[in-house]
Amino acid sequence: MTNKDARTPASDQGEQSQEAGKSIGWHKAYIEGSRPDLRVPVRQVHLTDGQSVALYDTSGPYTDPAAETDVRRGLAPLRETWIIARGDTEEYTGRPVRPEDDGIKHTSPRGGLRNLDAVFPGRPRQPRRGREGRAVTQLAHARRGEITPEMEFVAIREQVSPEVVREEIAAGRAVLPANVNHPETEPMIIGKRFLVKVNANIGNSAVTSSIEEEVEKMTWATRWGADTVMDLSTGRNIHTTREWVLRNSPVPIGTVPLYQALEKVEGKAEELTWEIYKDTVIEQAEQGVDYMTVHAGVRLPHVPLTANRKTGIVSRGGSIMAAWCLAHHKESFLYENFEELCEILAAYDITYSLGDGLRPGSIADANDAAQFAELRTLGELNRIARSFDVQTMIEGPGHVPMHKIKENIDLQQEICDEAPFYTLGPLTTDIAPAYDHITSGIGAAMIAWWGTAMLCYVTPKEHLGLPNRDDVKTGVITYKIAAHAADLAKGHPGAQEWDDALSDARFEFRWEDQFNLALDPETARAFHDETLPAEPAKTAHFCSMCGPKFCSMKISRSINEKYGDGAAEPEYDEAALEGMRAKSREFAAHGNRVYLPLAD
Amino acid sequence: MTNKDARTPASDQGEQSQEAGKSIGWHKAYIEGSRPDLRVPVRQVHLTDGQSVALYDTSGPYTDPAAETDVRRGLAPLRETWIIARGDTEEYTGRPVRPEDDGIKHTSPRGGLRNLDAVFPGRPRQPRRGREGRAVTQLAHARRGEITPEMEFVAIREQVSPEVVREEIAAGRAVLPANVNHPETEPMIIGKRFLVKVNANIGNSAVTSSIEEEVEKMTWATRWGADTVMDLSTGRNIHTTREWVLRNSPVPIGTVPLYQALEKVEGKAEELTWEIYKDTVIEQAEQGVDYMTVHAGVRLPHVPLTANRKTGIVSRGGSIMAAWCLAHHKESFLYENFEELCEILAAYDITYSLGDGLRPGSIADANDAAQFAELRTLGELNRIARSFDVQTMIEGPGHVPMHKIKENIDLQQEICDEAPFYTLGPLTTDIAPAYDHITSGIGAAMIAWWGTAMLCYVTPKEHLGLPNRDDVKTGVITYKIAAHAADLAKGHPGAQEWDDALSDARFEFRWEDQFNLALDPETARAFHDETLPAEPAKTAHFCSMCGPKFCSMKISRSINEKYGDGAAEPEYDEAALEGMRAKSREFAAHGNRVYLPLAD
Repeated sequence: MTNKDARTPASDQGEQSQEAGKSIGWHKAYIEGSRPDLRVPVRQVHLTDGQSVALYDTSGPYTDPAAETDVRRGLAPLRETWIIARGDTEEYTGRPVRPEDDGIKHTSPRGGLRNLDAVFPGRPRQPRRGREGRAVTQLAHARRGEITPEMEFVAIREQVSPEVVREEIAAGRAVLPANVNHPETEPMIIGKRFLVKVNANIGNSAVTSSIEEEVEKMTWATRWGADTVMDLSTGRNIHTTREWVLRNSPVPIGTVPLYQALEKVEGKAEELTWEIYKDTVIEQAEQGVDYMTVHAGVRLPHVPLTANRKTGIVSRGGSIMAAWCLAHHKESFLYENFEELCEILAAYDITYSLGDGLRPGSIADANDAAQFAELRTLGELNRIARSFDVQTMIEGPGHVPMHKIKENIDLQQEICDEAPFYTLGPLTTDIAPAYDHITSGIGAAMIAWWGTAMLCYVTPKEHLGLPNRDDVKTGVITYKIAAHAADLAKGHPGAQEWDDALSDARFEFRWEDQFNLALDPETARAFHDETLPAEPAKTAHFCSMCGPKFCSMKISRSINEKYGDGAAEPEYDEAALEGMRAKSREFAAHGNRVYLPLAD
Repeated sequence: MTNKDARTPASDQGEQSQEAGKSIGWHKAYIEGSRPDLRVPVRQVHLTDGQSVALYDTSGPYTDPAAETDVRRGLAPLRETWIIARGDTEEYTGRPVRPEDDGIKHTSPRGGLRNLDAVFPGRPRQPRRGREGRAVTQLAHARRGEITPEMEFVAIREQVSPEVVREEIAAGRAVLPANVNHPETEPMIIGKRFLVKVNANIGNSAVTSSIEEEVEKMTWATRWGADTVMDLSTGRNIHTTREWVLRNSPVPIGTVPLYQALEKVEGKAEELTWEIYKDTVIEQAEQGVDYMTVHAGVRLPHVPLTANRKTGIVSRGGSIMAAWCLAHHKESFLYENFEELCEILAAYDITYSLGDGLRPGSIADANDAAQFAELRTLGELNRIARSFDVQTMIEGPGHVPMHKIKENIDLQQEICDEAPFYTLGPLTTDIAPAYDHITSGIGAAMIAWWGTAMLCYVTPKEHLGLPNRDDVKTGVITYKIAAHAADLAKGHPGAQEWDDALSDARFEFRWEDQFNLALDPETARAFHDETLPAEPAKTAHFCSMCGPKFCSMKISRSINEKYGDGAAEPEYDEAALEGMRAKSREFAAHGNRVYLPLAD
């Protein structure tokens, strides 16, 4: 993929506008921190009134015309010098890549990787991990009172002080997912004190899709605002697909190692072992996975609690572990070996995403015994992870009716010592397959307002199929809406400035500004053109709702002219009437016109 | 439009299925009340497990293969015998239709109606109104303790007793909009005690669209679940378009008479008079408009309160009245003549929808002095309307961030004596033009949960252009989701049965049942086909998320087999472990398989 291909439609618009000699549109800008190699990207939107607005930007170098990007070489390792400078990690000879890592049977006559040309051609690299006895995680640094370049980077992004970032990480209320083997990532933070984040899932399955598609989905998702991406591949070439995605991703990448481990035992859950799982975690750790979903909360005693559910266990990871527990009638090997797993994650600064394997899969099963029994276990595990300096967030449901949503976040915050909550939706009804981005966007906005730190998106294809490019965009935009609605409700600094800038543009009929400030400028412009295609309409002081003959905004402006400036707001009483007599004469003098001139 | 043309895609599916000799799909059914001419339509969905589910149906005779429908003749006047039987109304020679009713200038050389062929050709009818001294509204009947056939009809629809319906109407907590001149409507009720309703706006404007399009939009909107439709036409042929819409509408029709009145004075708000307005109300009353938005709350003293707003007055009706008040420096003629207006509405049983002309048009203006000053006035007017036996609901915003939504419904319920609240969204952020069905669907679900009785839909074209057929469908489906999510959260009787039926179908891989139970069967089926097109996949015991090799649902079923039936849910303690030993041996005996057979 070339830099040009990677541009957003909005970026193209920006370019066009500049070519057309107009100063409107937007361009990629950077805010420099305390050192020249600490540059925080923003989307600088230039308005026709001369103002400009800087928006949070997740799209990476792909939207920077000055940056050379090539998916076969991967992104520049922006964080590498910071990581090396800390001196607490070392390179080592990593685990060799094996055919089975890509789902090739041991018995495969062809041996080796199925399609060698798929192997990532980028620069050779040795994996890196913490030196013996050194605590290298952002949590460890924060606890020692150290502000890393990563922390400064997110502080600038979030418009807060670096000390606030350090405090929130040190307290375990926020995580900064940044595997030492993923230096390409632009640091971001997940915590209720910061902007609500959105995760987009990608990944091939036994049924469909290819490596190229997954890399394209990742860049596409981040272009529309995805803050992290989870690669949930389950089919062939899992290892190689992940390598391509990681080397080209400007955002943290999450995975569910259990999925790949299951592939290695050909889908026979009962044949899973701690050794196979552990080997898979190390394989992915060396590649640079930033956070891992671990379903260690699905304990043997919890399984029967799901027996009388309407939809049983709908989490893939949850059902794999349930099957294993039942097959061996043993406690979960993830739960039993959790401390050793903590040591591994700590060495690479991988963040835990403690999975909710028993989340409800229907309105009927919401907030039941199985779900909350698992949550209590996740609370336990969270405390253990923190004792190993491992950053941790907690996953949440699922399908939950509106009146049962708040209990989820309140219980999670209490039981898990305010660890960041990371929820899937929740979906507020089961009756709308093909619209579950909406059924869940409603629940997502509410639970984020109440404290959820990151939302896992749901696409229109949920329950029906795998999302295509359009579904990914729709899912991301829907969830950016939910996240921003929550930022507004939480009163996050700077959140309302965006709405105000767009509403000012709307009120003043600055159509191009309205489009460029929109979450999806391309679609907003296209919809406007459907009704009023002509270019003059872009500057017309009316819209298709009322037409040129009458316009409410026009009247409002005359009211503002009469009473707006300085004039103290009249009280709701007769005194107001007095003060208005003179004013009304002025208005009459203006001809009392509510017409608008046709823009021609 | 023929009956066949009017069928829903889902109906077609139902037909096909029956042709294919399968018993699945759905058909239109009726629940008969205490009299043979009282038949409540339902959408009867037949499931492959032999069960069937009856869903609330707003689509009218168009989805009944047995019904003969022809838009040139109009629908059968279902309520006519009930209205006549009450003996409290009389036919009379109505107001003659004038060219200016359709926006033809008095000076028009051609005179008469612009395009005569557009005149509705259906049966000639005389308008009807209450006899001198007779109180004919549903509110008057309810207060007298009378249960009308309309009340019995909605009681069956809502699965409550007729007495509950009567009580809610008598108390003013619910309205049953049913103009005596719109006998074609199937009775429905709007109140917080009942299912949350959805309104869809249609209407041509000075800029676009035709009579045929508007009738088609109305039938299309009701087919997807719109409970009422507002005709907001502002261009030419307003009178004739409304006649076609009313004669063919199975749901109550609402209007904003002020829009047509403004056309009659060629857009010069200051030339509006009480006489012109009153004449327009009578014109529309005789046609059968069921509820009217009246912006009588926009009083002269309120106007200056909007002066320092970010987006001023965004309501068209509100800005028209503000312009009039300022031009004449007089109190609103709607406010001054409100009692006479009540007498007119009472004679036809037209329901008030007291408009929120000062609603906020941006996040920045939410819950401000202007908005709440108007709300207090609406509270006053509501009490006056009730004293005239006129049914009344109150309109609400608009643009409101999540944390300010609840104050809106709580204040409205207190100030307006629990009159039904009817809100537009609210939109929870301003930054997503082209996605405002979603920004507002979030707020709509929340405010409906907290007590809003009817939601006015918002389409993806909001702020950008006029909705087309697809936008109308998207808007209605999005709002049906918000309404149902609220019904679930409010615990409305029967609401969760729908979710449960769909989740059962999902868990048991009854794909066709899942589609037929969906709000939009057509799209759900199409999305599934994109990934797994083959017909066998419709009965396959797997989906494209995991593929055939591994399936979480399968595992859940085996857990249910082991522990589900009768088995008391084990506690979260060691005792559970004991009880499970024997069970695990059984599971092992089954081969511990978590594979699924390929559906071939």
